[in-house]
Amino acid sequence: MEIRIEADSIGSLAVPADAYYGVQSLRAKKNFNITGKPMHPVFIRNLVKIKKAAAVTNQSINKLDLKIADAIICACNEIISGKFQDQFIVDPIQGGAGTSANMNANEVIANRAAEILGGIKGDYSLVHPNDHVNMSQSTNDVIPSAGKLTVLELLPGTIFELKRLHTALLKKSKEFNHILKIGRTQLQDAVPMRLGQAFQAYASVIARDTCRLEKSMDEVSTLNMGGTAIGTAINANALYLQQIIPNINKICKTSCKQAADLFDATQNLDGFVSISGVIKTCAVNLSKLCNDLRLLSSGPKAGIGEINLPAKQNGSSIMPGKVNPVIPEVVTQVAFHIIGNDMAITMAAEAGQLELNAFEPVLFYNLFESIETLTGAVATLTDNCITDITANEEQCQVLLDASVGISTALCPFIGYQKAAELAKKSLKTGIAFRELVLKETELTLEQLNEILNPTNMTEPKYHLDNLFLQTN
Amino acid sequence: MEIRIEADSIGSLAVPADAYYGVQSLRAKKNFNITGKPMHPVFIRNLVKIKKAAAVTNQSINKLDLKIADAIICACNEIISGKFQDQFIVDPIQGGAGTSANMNANEVIANRAAEILGGIKGDYSLVHPNDHVNMSQSTNDVIPSAGKLTVLELLPGTIFELKRLHTALLKKSKEFNHILKIGRTQLQDAVPMRLGQAFQAYASVIARDTCRLEKSMDEVSTLNMGGTAIGTAINANALYLQQIIPNINKICKTSCKQAADLFDATQNLDGFVSISGVIKTCAVNLSKLCNDLRLLSSGPKAGIGEINLPAKQNGSSIMPGKVNPVIPEVVTQVAFHIIGNDMAITMAAEAGQLELNAFEPVLFYNLFESIETLTGAVATLTDNCITDITANEEQCQVLLDASVGISTALCPFIGYQKAAELAKKSLKTGIAFRELVLKETELTLEQLNEILNPTNMTEPKYHLDNLFLQTN
Amino acid sequence: MEIRIEADSIGSLAVPADAYYGVQSLRAKKNFNITGKPMHPVFIRNLVKIKKAAAVTNQSINKLDLKIADAIICACNEIISGKFQDQFIVDPIQGGAGTSANMNANEVIANRAAEILGGIKGDYSLVHPNDHVNMSQSTNDVIPSAGKLTVLELLPGTIFELKRLHTALLKKSKEFNHILKIGRTQLQDAVPMRLGQAFQAYASVIARDTCRLEKSMDEVSTLNMGGTAIGTAINANALYLQQIIPNINKICKTSCKQAADLFDATQNLDGFVSISGVIKTCAVNLSKLCNDLRLLSSGPKAGIGEINLPAKQNGSSIMPGKVNPVIPEVVTQVAFHIIGNDMAITMAAEAGQLELNAFEPVLFYNLFESIETLTGAVATLTDNCITDITANEEQCQVLLDASVGISTALCPFIGYQKAAELAKKSLKTGIAFRELVLKETELTLEQLNEILNPTNMTEPKYHLDNLFLQTN
Amino acid sequence: MEIRIEADSIGSLAVPADAYYGVQSLRAKKNFNITGKPMHPVFIRNLVKIKKAAAVTNQSINKLDLKIADAIICACNEIISGKFQDQFIVDPIQGGAGTSANMNANEVIANRAAEILGGIKGDYSLVHPNDHVNMSQSTNDVIPSAGKLTVLELLPGTIFELKRLHTALLKKSKEFNHILKIGRTQLQDAVPMRLGQAFQAYASVIARDTCRLEKSMDEVSTLNMGGTAIGTAINANALYLQQIIPNINKICKTSCKQAADLFDATQNLDGFVSISGVIKTCAVNLSKLCNDLRLLSSGPKAGIGEINLPAKQNGSSIMPGKVNPVIPEVVTQVAFHIIGNDMAITMAAEAGQLELNAFEPVLFYNLFESIETLTGAVATLTDNCITDITANEEQCQVLLDASVGISTALCPFIGYQKAAELAKKSLKTGIAFRELVLKETELTLEQLNEILNPTNMTEPKYHLDNLFLQTN
Repeated sequence: MEIRIEADSIGSLAVPADAYYGVQSLRAKKNFNITGKPMHPVFIRNLVKIKKAAAVTNQSINKLDLKIADAIICACNEIISGKFQDQFIVDPIQGGAGTSANMNANEVIANRAAEILGGIKGDYSLVHPNDHVNMSQSTNDVIPSAGKLTVLELLPGTIFELKRLHTALLKKSKEFNHILKIGRTQLQDAVPMRLGQAFQAYASVIARDTCRLEKSMDEVSTLNMGGTAIGTAINANALYLQQIIPNINKICKTSCKQAADLFDATQNLDGFVSISGVIKTCAVNLSKLCNDLRLLSSGPKAGIGEINLPAKQNGSSIMPGKVNPVIPEVVTQVAFHIIGNDMAITMAAEAGQLELNAFEPVLFYNLFESIETLTGAVATLTDNCITDITANEEQCQVLLDASVGISTALCPFIGYQKAAELAKKSLKTGIAFRELVLKETELTLEQLNEILNPTNMTEPKYHLDNLFLQTN
Repeated sequence: MEIRIEADSIGSLAVPADAYYGVQSLRAKKNFNITGKPMHPVFIRNLVKIKKAAAVTNQSINKLDLKIADAIICACNEIISGKFQDQFIVDPIQGGAGTSANMNANEVIANRAAEILGGIKGDYSLVHPNDHVNMSQSTNDVIPSAGKLTVLELLPGTIFELKRLHTALLKKSKEFNHILKIGRTQLQDAVPMRLGQAFQAYASVIARDTCRLEKSMDEVSTLNMGGTAIGTAINANALYLQQIIPNINKICKTSCKQAADLFDATQNLDGFVSISGVIKTCAVNLSKLCNDLRLLSSGPKAGIGEINLPAKQNGSSIMPGKVNPVIPEVVTQVAFHIIGNDMAITMAAEAGQLELNAFEPVLFYNLFESIETLTGAVATLTDNCITDITANEEQCQVLLDASVGISTALCPFIGYQKAAELAKKSLKTGIAFRELVLKETELTLEQLNEILNPTNMTEPKYHLDNLFLQTN
Repeated sequence: MEIRIEADSIGSLAVPADAYYGVQSLRAKKNFNITGKPMHPVFIRNLVKIKKAAAVTNQSINKLDLKIADAIICACNEIISGKFQDQFIVDPIQGGAGTSANMNANEVIANRAAEILGGIKGDYSLVHPNDHVNMSQSTNDVIPSAGKLTVLELLPGTIFELKRLHTALLKKSKEFNHILKIGRTQLQDAVPMRLGQAFQAYASVIARDTCRLEKSMDEVSTLNMGGTAIGTAINANALYLQQIIPNINKICKTSCKQAADLFDATQNLDGFVSISGVIKTCAVNLSKLCNDLRLLSSGPKAGIGEINLPAKQNGSSIMPGKVNPVIPEVVTQVAFHIIGNDMAITMAAEAGQLELNAFEPVLFYNLFESIETLTGAVATLTDNCITDITANEEQCQVLLDASVGISTALCPFIGYQKAAELAKKSLKTGIAFRELVLKETELTLEQLNEILNPTNMTEPKYHLDNLFLQTN
Repeated sequence: MEIRIEADSIGSLAVPADAYYGVQSLRAKKNFNITGKPMHPVFIRNLVKIKKAAAVTNQSINKLDLKIADAIICACNEIISGKFQDQFIVDPIQGGAGTSANMNANEVIANRAAEILGGIKGDYSLVHPNDHVNMSQSTNDVIPSAGKLTVLELLPGTIFELKRLHTALLKKSKEFNHILKIGRTQLQDAVPMRLGQAFQAYASVIARDTCRLEKSMDEVSTLNMGGTAIGTAINANALYLQQIIPNINKICKTSCKQAADLFDATQNLDGFVSISGVIKTCAVNLSKLCNDLRLLSSGPKAGIGEINLPAKQNGSSIMPGKVNPVIPEVVTQVAFHIIGNDMAITMAAEAGQLELNAFEPVLFYNLFESIETLTGAVATLTDNCITDITANEEQCQVLLDASVGISTALCPFIGYQKAAELAKKSLKTGIAFRELVLKETELTLEQLNEILNPTNMTEPKYHLDNLFLQTN
């Protein structure tokens, strides 16, 4: 491998001759052999977009020579379009609050810009990673801003998938609206309901999550760009401060604002903790929903079996014909993963000290993964599970009839104690509860039918009992 | 001890003769010997307020006899005013989604109401815990609603304390506005700033937390009252459904709404997870702030020592004259506690199954504790720490002068590389950076003074460098 | 209230005249209004036992006057026997690494000892809290040691309860050994097993937990007593260092060792993290076991219903006759609580700085609660649930027959693909799998009976298939 | 792309003609688009080693035709040697307890074995993925066993690195043994110590972690191989049960045992939780150690600055000459990551139901990552930080002299109260504490020098105070 020698304040190092990255990226690569994975491509892209916006701004306020600015912008555009991805060699979990990520970008851009201007890689006299590419910036404003832009780019995908899930659940809710079944609390037979109502409830909670996620985007829409090292805006002038966010918004198609308090915005990561909390809440709801699907489809013969999940793959390498609820299972796994990630994010945010939080890299690694795995999980849940769920209407009825779930409806007419006594008798003797009521209370068949009318028992807004009270 | 014998579906049990609680409470006490602590008094009070609202409603729609309703209301009022607290004997961590807490309230109210009507304790013929006190209700709507009302009652106290903290921080920010100091990133000397800016940043983040907490109260303002067992509103009639929330609002001085989807509102606890996430975010910020206070006041002689925390107690049983940052330390401990509680809350919410979440009691236990310890921690932070912090102005200046933190300001004029070289030389030789600059660059003393003017270096909105660029 | 005025380095304060605690305790009480709960009585007792051991040691090496030592020992004995509990007024969550707890003990002992010597409360000339009671000690060795002794005292109770649980599970395992049922993986019907095997597996995992907990006691058997402030043993002489641990062991009936590295033992709390991890692992296993019990007893009519949990209380305030699995539910809640506590413990341990960890109080608060709630949960699980579980043998058979769980056993004889085809056909048509096999394969009834012999299918150590392979 | 059509119980699907994976792998890939990352190569390798061991066993007991067995073994050997890695296409986070991972392996092996036997890919008549490759196995014994073997392969690397770290710390401990410094508790000046004692303490805690990790390997040395689907060993015969573990041990160079209770070993994942807890404990200790390094090296001018960490890369893109503690920072980030992972692992283990835990894949994903990031972090800590730490001996002395840390040593001679008074006076007036003692107490210079002798003050095992007591 051909090499070139590059030097920095630390010393000199052999860099592959054809590398766009430079000595600082290479040092970082050697220092941080942690996950073995690359940084998130969307994060790299947004980091480079910020670099572009800074070059545009610095040029427009005459701090940066037009030729250099153009070369930097051109290099940025190439990276944004997908080139040079392999030149980003730093591990996503890295010490130093992202300085290595920032310098990796600065070096790749500087070397490519130098090439564009006719220079050669490793010669930073034409375009300097710090003086030109990083002009008016610091790792400390660039990296958290790139993190926020990444969240702003990734989160709409999650929201889109949640809305599709919501639609699919609502559709099932209507499809199953007529199916009577026993409701269960604490896994014990409770009172009658309709299967559609269960899916309506799932739709309701997903709608709430969607709404929370949409609102949470505000948490990452305030950037500390211009604050540079610690919020004093050292080395960024007043015009740059005015123009940098509008230029970022133009390039990233965002509507971010500048932080009113640049110190606060540089040192505190609570916006990310808040977003992670919202994502975690959504994960909790999804896991609960998926656990329900697994319970309702359990069996098929020796479980509840009220619904069928679509068979998406063989369930077992040994048990023939077995089909497992693999899609709900993977969603719950993703939920556990997200809850764990939330803990790492929380600790990283808590560990900030004075004017900076040096633990952003691990926070981002976890947060981006949370968002993406959630998006993937919701997508497969909608497409490979919810959409093709079918109901076992007959089984719903069989289980409802076997239970004494209708006994509650009798309480207002025969009292809790009498109802309890008959319910226990029915469970013990096997005699249908309905039969016992007719035999052992004064209720007539007509009254009983009215009380136990499915609509009466399952519809919150419509109840007849006043009628009876008058006749009592 | 005199006893009376009470019976329920399970069997009969000896209850102390003078107890207002009954057989079901006693069974629960025996079943759940977990924390050894009582249920939260505010939770009990809100549970009883709901009972009162239900009696009012049931009476007004003619489901409940006026005399019985009045006795129930009267008993409720007594409990709300603080009586009979020792009659609530069930452990806060209890199986059964709060049925034991609910029955404890039903029994105490029923027995007291019976007494009021001239009956005796243990005779439920006059006022029945289930048929009368619990009329139109279920544990499953009453308990989560009581939990929400409790949060609505406790959280404003936290918000009040956060606002006081915000005011105290702002005051310090102004008091310290003129004090120049070195800013630090990653615990290493960075660039100059003013001490007031540090406290302004603390105020900013606390303002954001306050705002988040205020908004979060919406998360618990939607009640599932009227949904009864699972959301079908079985045994609650249409008029009750209309009137119960307004009656609760009247009694609790709240402005709650009824859930649009009573199934969803009965089975999902995401509102509590969401609030806990907001509280956790606040705890993270407070802990970071307090860690900063401990760093800045470290020493007093062999640390940073830029500020002094008020001495609130002797710091050591062995080291004379030692004063420790005990108030920030306790705040950080509370933060850890809250983060742990958030995990328990998250798991409890995730574990819901089908039409109910049976793990509300542990969720409430943790959530109430999070809110109250946070309130206490913030109060002591304001009163016993922030208010009396003083600055060591001289030490701030000494450390600033010792550092090469001003070197960054030179980069736009002499380049990053030259600035780095001089900074390293200064650190190595001990020669002041300023001196080296004058000696080894072409900058004049006048220019240097202008560049290193404190305002230029610490004020985001005002920078002169354009001037120089023109002269370059 | 009568008062006395006490002074310390901070200033003077009015203390209730009859209080045994003094000015430093009172300051701490005012500074830390956090949980509103008292410190754990076992922790206080062990702290006082250490004080006693120190007095014994200091006297025996002639550092402490015999008269003073005797008075201190006598005061300690009184507290150990249960007196003066209300004099321990400091919140368990307190800043300062336990200095307040330590001084609370020092003051109560000093004042009581002074009384014994004929002095009056508040006059520390006879017995001084720091110079005499705290002699040769520091908060920094006394508090972590008291924490360890507390764990050593509480944990055997947990282990005892786990052993009782193990015995109860084994008994059920034998009782249910003959009952054939369908095994389930991923909530889907899998292959046949015996109910006793399920309970044997529960017993096995509990035995492993017991073993882990027993081993984990080593983690807290190494004390840093004698290290005083930071491990240098400043103000503790060589003889004291030799004798203090043996004296503690005598008084506490323990067999603790002195830490080889007193610095390490003073600053690191990993032993507690390790123990909490073991407790958490046990909680995880218990929760899984309890979730299984809830699944197996679900119904009773519209669920799995293979076992019945004993009815320990009415399950519902509205649904007559409903009995819920409240005991397993409370165990799972305790598990969530413990998992949350483990997080707080982890964060507290991670936050140690240099020669001390200042976050011990919140660690202890969480750890003691984890141990005690676990003990209570296991006790009620054994006594109020496991012991009286009964099996629904008929239901086990019905569900087994309904399933195609026996199809797996056919794979070695007819191949996975054919078996899958027949299983699906059976599920679809409702024709018994067994019947289809006889009709559509070449297996004879005799062969089939042999393959499907319950012992063959459920007993790991005995399988006939070689026989068939020879005939194939 | 050329395709072939493959069918399973679900239906038929187009598989790339040259793919070694088959229809079931492809379905899984479509179902689980979660992390976008491949399964861990060591996990794949161990899974394939198990397949090989099963083939060896099945052949030796005459269940598997010699020719087929040989082809399977040959295919396994190729994969083990590193071939066909790209044929493992299933996402590491997958529903179904690892059935997809298992079938991916079964299909790749079957197709490759078929090729070896002269067949073509997709034709399973020669070698069948289920009937031959998966013979006597189930996902449910194969996957957890492969997970355990992976941990057994990865963990020694961590232990090796921890031992190297321990050696490096011990070396520094000796190198710094003579350097006196002030010890700090709660970030406040405490009492004198030697810098070497600090590093000795770090070495001690790492030794303890190493020991814990070594012991923890027992937790994953018990395999459930032979239990097949749920522990009944259905379709595995008695000879296979006897030979499979010895054969695995031969191939994997392990010394695993067969689980005594195969049901327990199939359904419970507590061994992994336990190991994760040990790893987490180690991460907590490492993070504390690294936080200390950052504190001690803070500055270099405006912080503590007692030690210098080696400069491994430029610390800032904007601040010239700044060098940051990037290595300790990355270790702490890894610690946060591991603590988060532990939470996901805990939840996954808790979620097991009845005869299986379906959440193994997310558990493995997190556990493998925890181990590997820990190994990488420790390696870089040793090589890029600890080894080249230097001490600022002069700064240590300056800070020690500036503090009143020696005042504690005076307590036994002048009393706590007098010592406190003088310490406060020294801090307030700036007069050296030593000077004040000579002036305001009766101690002679000779006595003072003896008391304040560095050895006396820092060495736990050697204290003179008896001498004085005699003269008193």
